[in-house]
Amino acid sequence: RALWGGRFATETNELVARISESVSYDHRLYKHDIAQSKAHVRMLAKQGLVTAEDAAQCTSGLDQLCSQIENGTFGAFDIKLEDIHMNLESRLTRLVGEPGSKLHTARSRNDQVATDLRLYLRDEIQLLISLVRSLQRVLVTLAEEYAQVIMPGFTHLQHAQPVVLGHYFLAYCEMFDRDAGRLEDTLNRLDFCPLGSGAIATTTLPIDRFFVAEQLGFRHGPCRNSMDAVSDRDFALELLAAISISMMHLSRMSEDLIFWMSQEAGWIELGDAFCTGSSLMPQKKNPDVCELTRGKTGRVYGNLLALLAMMKGLPLCYNRDMQEDKERIFDSLDTYKALLQIFREMILTLKPNQERMFAAASDPSLMATDLAEWLVRNGVPFREAHHRVGALVGECTRSGRRLNELTLTEMQRVVPEATADCLELFDPLRSVQARNIFGGTAPEQVRSQVAFWKRQPWF
Amino acid sequence: RALWGGRFATETNELVARISESVSYDHRLYKHDIAQSKAHVRMLAKQGLVTAEDAAQCTSGLDQLCSQIENGTFGAFDIKLEDIHMNLESRLTRLVGEPGSKLHTARSRNDQVATDLRLYLRDEIQLLISLVRSLQRVLVTLAEEYAQVIMPGFTHLQHAQPVVLGHYFLAYCEMFDRDAGRLEDTLNRLDFCPLGSGAIATTTLPIDRFFVAEQLGFRHGPCRNSMDAVSDRDFALELLAAISISMMHLSRMSEDLIFWMSQEAGWIELGDAFCTGSSLMPQKKNPDVCELTRGKTGRVYGNLLALLAMMKGLPLCYNRDMQEDKERIFDSLDTYKALLQIFREMILTLKPNQERMFAAASDPSLMATDLAEWLVRNGVPFREAHHRVGALVGECTRSGRRLNELTLTEMQRVVPEATADCLELFDPLRSVQARNIFGGTAPEQVRSQVAFWKRQPWF
Amino acid sequence: RALWGGRFATETNELVARISESVSYDHRLYKHDIAQSKAHVRMLAKQGLVTAEDAAQCTSGLDQLCSQIENGTFGAFDIKLEDIHMNLESRLTRLVGEPGSKLHTARSRNDQVATDLRLYLRDEIQLLISLVRSLQRVLVTLAEEYAQVIMPGFTHLQHAQPVVLGHYFLAYCEMFDRDAGRLEDTLNRLDFCPLGSGAIATTTLPIDRFFVAEQLGFRHGPCRNSMDAVSDRDFALELLAAISISMMHLSRMSEDLIFWMSQEAGWIELGDAFCTGSSLMPQKKNPDVCELTRGKTGRVYGNLLALLAMMKGLPLCYNRDMQEDKERIFDSLDTYKALLQIFREMILTLKPNQERMFAAASDPSLMATDLAEWLVRNGVPFREAHHRVGALVGECTRSGRRLNELTLTEMQRVVPEATADCLELFDPLRSVQARNIFGGTAPEQVRSQVAFWKRQPWF
Amino acid sequence: RALWGGRFATETNELVARISESVSYDHRLYKHDIAQSKAHVRMLAKQGLVTAEDAAQCTSGLDQLCSQIENGTFGAFDIKLEDIHMNLESRLTRLVGEPGSKLHTARSRNDQVATDLRLYLRDEIQLLISLVRSLQRVLVTLAEEYAQVIMPGFTHLQHAQPVVLGHYFLAYCEMFDRDAGRLEDTLNRLDFCPLGSGAIATTTLPIDRFFVAEQLGFRHGPCRNSMDAVSDRDFALELLAAISISMMHLSRMSEDLIFWMSQEAGWIELGDAFCTGSSLMPQKKNPDVCELTRGKTGRVYGNLLALLAMMKGLPLCYNRDMQEDKERIFDSLDTYKALLQIFREMILTLKPNQERMFAAASDPSLMATDLAEWLVRNGVPFREAHHRVGALVGECTRSGRRLNELTLTEMQRVVPEATADCLELFDPLRSVQARNIFGGTAPEQVRSQVAFWKRQPWF
Repeated sequence: RALWGGRFATETNELVARISESVSYDHRLYKHDIAQSKAHVRMLAKQGLVTAEDAAQCTSGLDQLCSQIENGTFGAFDIKLEDIHMNLESRLTRLVGEPGSKLHTARSRNDQVATDLRLYLRDEIQLLISLVRSLQRVLVTLAEEYAQVIMPGFTHLQHAQPVVLGHYFLAYCEMFDRDAGRLEDTLNRLDFCPLGSGAIATTTLPIDRFFVAEQLGFRHGPCRNSMDAVSDRDFALELLAAISISMMHLSRMSEDLIFWMSQEAGWIELGDAFCTGSSLMPQKKNPDVCELTRGKTGRVYGNLLALLAMMKGLPLCYNRDMQEDKERIFDSLDTYKALLQIFREMILTLKPNQERMFAAASDPSLMATDLAEWLVRNGVPFREAHHRVGALVGECTRSGRRLNELTLTEMQRVVPEATADCLELFDPLRSVQARNIFGGTAPEQVRSQVAFWKRQPWF
Repeated sequence: RALWGGRFATETNELVARISESVSYDHRLYKHDIAQSKAHVRMLAKQGLVTAEDAAQCTSGLDQLCSQIENGTFGAFDIKLEDIHMNLESRLTRLVGEPGSKLHTARSRNDQVATDLRLYLRDEIQLLISLVRSLQRVLVTLAEEYAQVIMPGFTHLQHAQPVVLGHYFLAYCEMFDRDAGRLEDTLNRLDFCPLGSGAIATTTLPIDRFFVAEQLGFRHGPCRNSMDAVSDRDFALELLAAISISMMHLSRMSEDLIFWMSQEAGWIELGDAFCTGSSLMPQKKNPDVCELTRGKTGRVYGNLLALLAMMKGLPLCYNRDMQEDKERIFDSLDTYKALLQIFREMILTLKPNQERMFAAASDPSLMATDLAEWLVRNGVPFREAHHRVGALVGECTRSGRRLNELTLTEMQRVVPEATADCLELFDPLRSVQARNIFGGTAPEQVRSQVAFWKRQPWF
Repeated sequence: RALWGGRFATETNELVARISESVSYDHRLYKHDIAQSKAHVRMLAKQGLVTAEDAAQCTSGLDQLCSQIENGTFGAFDIKLEDIHMNLESRLTRLVGEPGSKLHTARSRNDQVATDLRLYLRDEIQLLISLVRSLQRVLVTLAEEYAQVIMPGFTHLQHAQPVVLGHYFLAYCEMFDRDAGRLEDTLNRLDFCPLGSGAIATTTLPIDRFFVAEQLGFRHGPCRNSMDAVSDRDFALELLAAISISMMHLSRMSEDLIFWMSQEAGWIELGDAFCTGSSLMPQKKNPDVCELTRGKTGRVYGNLLALLAMMKGLPLCYNRDMQEDKERIFDSLDTYKALLQIFREMILTLKPNQERMFAAASDPSLMATDLAEWLVRNGVPFREAHHRVGALVGECTRSGRRLNELTLTEMQRVVPEATADCLELFDPLRSVQARNIFGGTAPEQVRSQVAFWKRQPWF
Repeated sequence: RALWGGRFATETNELVARISESVSYDHRLYKHDIAQSKAHVRMLAKQGLVTAEDAAQCTSGLDQLCSQIENGTFGAFDIKLEDIHMNLESRLTRLVGEPGSKLHTARSRNDQVATDLRLYLRDEIQLLISLVRSLQRVLVTLAEEYAQVIMPGFTHLQHAQPVVLGHYFLAYCEMFDRDAGRLEDTLNRLDFCPLGSGAIATTTLPIDRFFVAEQLGFRHGPCRNSMDAVSDRDFALELLAAISISMMHLSRMSEDLIFWMSQEAGWIELGDAFCTGSSLMPQKKNPDVCELTRGKTGRVYGNLLALLAMMKGLPLCYNRDMQEDKERIFDSLDTYKALLQIFREMILTLKPNQERMFAAASDPSLMATDLAEWLVRNGVPFREAHHRVGALVGECTRSGRRLNELTLTEMQRVVPEATADCLELFDPLRSVQARNIFGGTAPEQVRSQVAFWKRQPWF
């Protein structure tokens, strides 16, 4: 019989029990539920709502349960007891008797689960941030290593201008830096303690919410409004949005790596440990991690949408719809954590084929902008310079020649201002070095950014 | 070492192995994978690609594996073997020796998984249709039972006009009828056999795709284009869209039931077996199933989005991203199946409080339209009739009286055409009976629709 | 003052008026709203609810308004009148006097807008189907033209096996065929007439819904349940889902074309008319249409999800939330229609660089499967054949040689069964011709599929 | 001919021109584009890349264009010039001649649009924050006014415990406070200047990015990596996520208000100016704003998902897909801004029916927890207390009596510890006053929270 079953005449329908239980997944909150219960019962004792002896028995009983779970002697969770909260309370009462049945004093599962989730996510988000930082460190290292490796930079997947590979890695370092920032903001905003809000309106018993919040290390103390505290899942939405954006970054890097690894580009190898083969075609080596990352980005988006849709139009305060939050959160966390770790290791196995990259970047049309800018420096208004170089490229395309195959005379037919200097422009190394602007791709700039990152406290 | 590992120098990274294995969930395709392999090997024998003896050993070995899985003696699936296909092939080879190592002849996991999925979904969709039909039957039964129970009909959650409860249930019968139609269309469109498409381009071996398709009961024979066959997941998207729409219907009924069960309406009771209580508040009886249904609708939407996002912009043909399809599909199927069954049982426990419903429907302002239409029948243009009755209602609101408390003289001050007949209009039973139009809420119409449904072949 | 304003004391807040008006976009329903009103008033006359003279004046007035709108003399729609329905009714009444004020007899905007939308979408979906068929015809033509042009087929964006370009185009013909099927199913399922359902419960006036449904050409007659008829938007969801899936197909083709047009592949040119340049880099020619298509696929997904979220958990029947449907529907329709037309024209400008494609497909590792299958034909169990060829490929990779550079003796060291025949296998033309299986990439099969499509009634 | 058309042989296809132009919506960036161009050209002059005279002519020309746009003399934007950037540059050149054709020196539309968007969003977000603060101020005012108005608090839409209406309003004040925080974080994170990044790799010309960033007031200076700067849309995603969460809050308040305004609750009136009537049913007064808010929440979610899907898997750097960002951003901004303003005004018209609210809260079962907690204070372990009170409630339900109708003797049969004091517990005023815990619903706590908010700098 359910612990809440006083007024009920019949048992829960079995199918309903199956879709409404949550212990099969919320058991992963056990450690935080126990920490919470210990802080709660200590407070109850301090306030004279239970005896010191009751509190001592509860805390030591809870510690025992924690050990049992961790060493595998706890046994199976009971789906009839619905969730981790009821499983622990029930088992505690079996273990220590009456004191256990006082644990739920001045507490509802509504504030309890909200507190567990925040405690759990606080730990998880800290872990996420450290994994992001760790990935950034690898990116900075690679940026330093490849500060001078030249490759084509793309827009619209068309060759645009030469860049160095180190510059590319630093672009991702920026993205993950913003991701870390979003995670930190989420962490900061959730650092309030809901406990003591009860089901909706706090309690008629003289509890001390500040004591509990402090015991549990909530930086901003207790939530200021009980109705909000139990119906708020903003922190989950904000986290799932932050993860979605960061997964999008991973999906973009994946897209690039897949392209670079195609036979058409042939620019990189990834370690065998991060690729798989084909059950049919013996020659295949596939960039599975990158593909899975793209696919799992969709999954993580789906989790965000699920929660947004779930919360839309819910009346205040708690509604059972909100139980759907946990599986979606856990799924996004697990996916994201695994991929952060894998990417860090995978990109360390990346081997660029520098010759092929350089050859591709040597296509002189990538230096068309350099020519236009040379004209600007020699007095041609930019729009005019752009137009003439465009015409020059058009002619080359039609006649099947490359820009650097033109003689000066031929060039001057379309671009009269051209001098012999112009013929020197079609060198990708010169081109990247010339972009020696803050934030630019010149190796000097890349090294300066590397130095910037290395000065960060988390590096 | 992976079965595809011929060209690989190192083993798969452990974290990668964990995120890329699928046997932990695709094992539920075992029955269909075995059916497929049996049809495939029979075809190989027919075509002389393996001996009859090889085929016989394979089929009997596969049958043994099937029994082992079903009676629990198969043991754990091996995550190193990645998926159900490799697990079964590998185990078969261990069981029957060399013939097992011929099973994958002229087959790729790309066409294999596409075939498994279609076979599996064919069964699942048929089950879904039968569950929808079963829910419709209950709705029709309730519609008959409550063909005369009067309640307020709402628009904008404001009282609109009286309707009968039976009419409400038939509205849902219509929705689920469309849902069944969408499922049937999905089933029809997926009923092609991908097997024989190989990885992308069929095979150089002389296979017979029509034979296999027929053995596996695919109504439309083999897929017509091998590149499409292995990169198509339309059927999954179409199914997840159909389930999303149907879950939306369940979520709308849930919203109504929750409102009806509020203390404010107090119109229905749901059986204790479909509600739960509160761990804190002893008096609570909550409509959890309805709330979970709303919440899970978000989840099912999320699965659809995940797959849409996953498929967007994928180059042809197969990409590993597509492995993300199965967990999302299974999750939506499980959720939807459980709720279809639960709703069928739950609404049978619904007990309307007919007095409260009738009292609410007796608010005379619900019959304001009846009065306007009475005026139309007596020669007042509708727009004028509407305006006068509106003015009458406005006056009542301001003076705190109800329409049926006005005397004829008072009414005539705003509506000069009114006669004593008008005072009779404020009776909800008369009102519903007057809506004796095809599709209307008159009990006679409801009964006629009930008869229509009972004539359906699936009833 | 609003037409419904009888009971209201104050005017609508101006900001509210602005967010709640719909005539700025639903005016595009004008033609269908007029057709509906004409059928409705004819029915009113037939039933004696208005005079024949009233009906004649209304229909001729409505025809005048239609002409005015189409020749630009109607003037601006009035946002204070909220929607196209009220704008037309109000203008009609100004034009013909009292008969106009009878038009709304036995009708609510709830059934009116549901009818307009279905009428409008019936036309639009028919147009969509014809555009899809038209795109398919172009694909079939290209498939015929390129039935023998060889290119690498990809899985995981890695070279898999040679295929012909015609086979690729036919894969898309299949996808669009399913899209057409989904549109037809949607069309069929929506072909019921809601009119006469009133606000929720039909009417107390003796209307004839069958007459109206027939006049408006609704194949399945009137909707069977008035509460469902006014709260149903399944047809919009089903349509947006069908469009989303089809846009996904366009996005996949876009992804391929972008890749093929990269300098790395260099396999195709697209007409200048379908590309744009860069304001900075004179050499750029970008595949903008393909990129916009991918981007707009996200937009179309967003519209679907907006509607799914909108409908979730709405109580019966009509709620104002549902007004949000139209802009999302129109946006997806406009996007999809434009892209269907553009793709048809754009792919006609596609010029394959057959030499580069063939060269890429000549990489002998694409024929690794052919070798494995040759071994199977010569008695080696497939799994063993796969493993040996894999080992051979691995050795080649490590020693920097290609499969077709091995001598027979070298090959036999790993694959003892190899004969001189094996050295002939590394020819992509031979390879595609060998895949002469139903649905396969052999030119003969492609031509046979082309013939199949040409036999379709819509071709 | 397009400004970038140097190398192009044919004009853009007309349909393509129509789907790829953006000036029809990005014209709203005109002010920020002009500000940017002025800062840019000043920098060009400072660096000697144009003359001071050129710069002066450009800035004064740009000022003229700005005035023309604002006083309506600019005329129509030219869709052939694609976007606001090209429209302004082209018009400037027409106005001032050659200096205008130098404006695009060392600039690409890629960094230009990224800069415009950030400048525009900086202003918009500041506006959003001020609108949120303004709504919070109204909520605090209402909280103070209704600090003692008692109503039922709900969980699962079932009566839970009495709360005061002021407490409810403060719950929303908390939600909007987090929303403001998210907007501030977004603002802070986007406050970097992309200009000078060029198309991808900065420029070979000696520009000064710090000068431009300072001129434009970017708090954190120029973006640190040019490849990231032009391919980053995180700020848009983060903003759309923040708006989605806040719209969800508005949708929840809407859901409550709709319920409260139903005839069943009858607890509030909303001003006529924020409701509309029915074209058919004269008595209707519908909470349209609340319904539209729920519906538009779906729309805003759709915009977020459109952008997430759009960005997924895009290769670096800029791709044309990203042009789809602006319409989605503008749509969410417009929707959210309008609703923030409307809500602030609408809730000021809310009139609670305090008698009906109090009557509903007087249902003694809402005080069941109070009784259980009384028992706890008198030594009964909570779980036992809960069970006994539950049994008492169950008996009352079955016998059709209310808790406060029991005699002490009857109560003692189930709850032996009960004393006469228990009979006093069923008073909702006493009940709310007893919840005098930090964050609780006691009027004293509500007033203390009101004081807290009034101390905030933005109040």
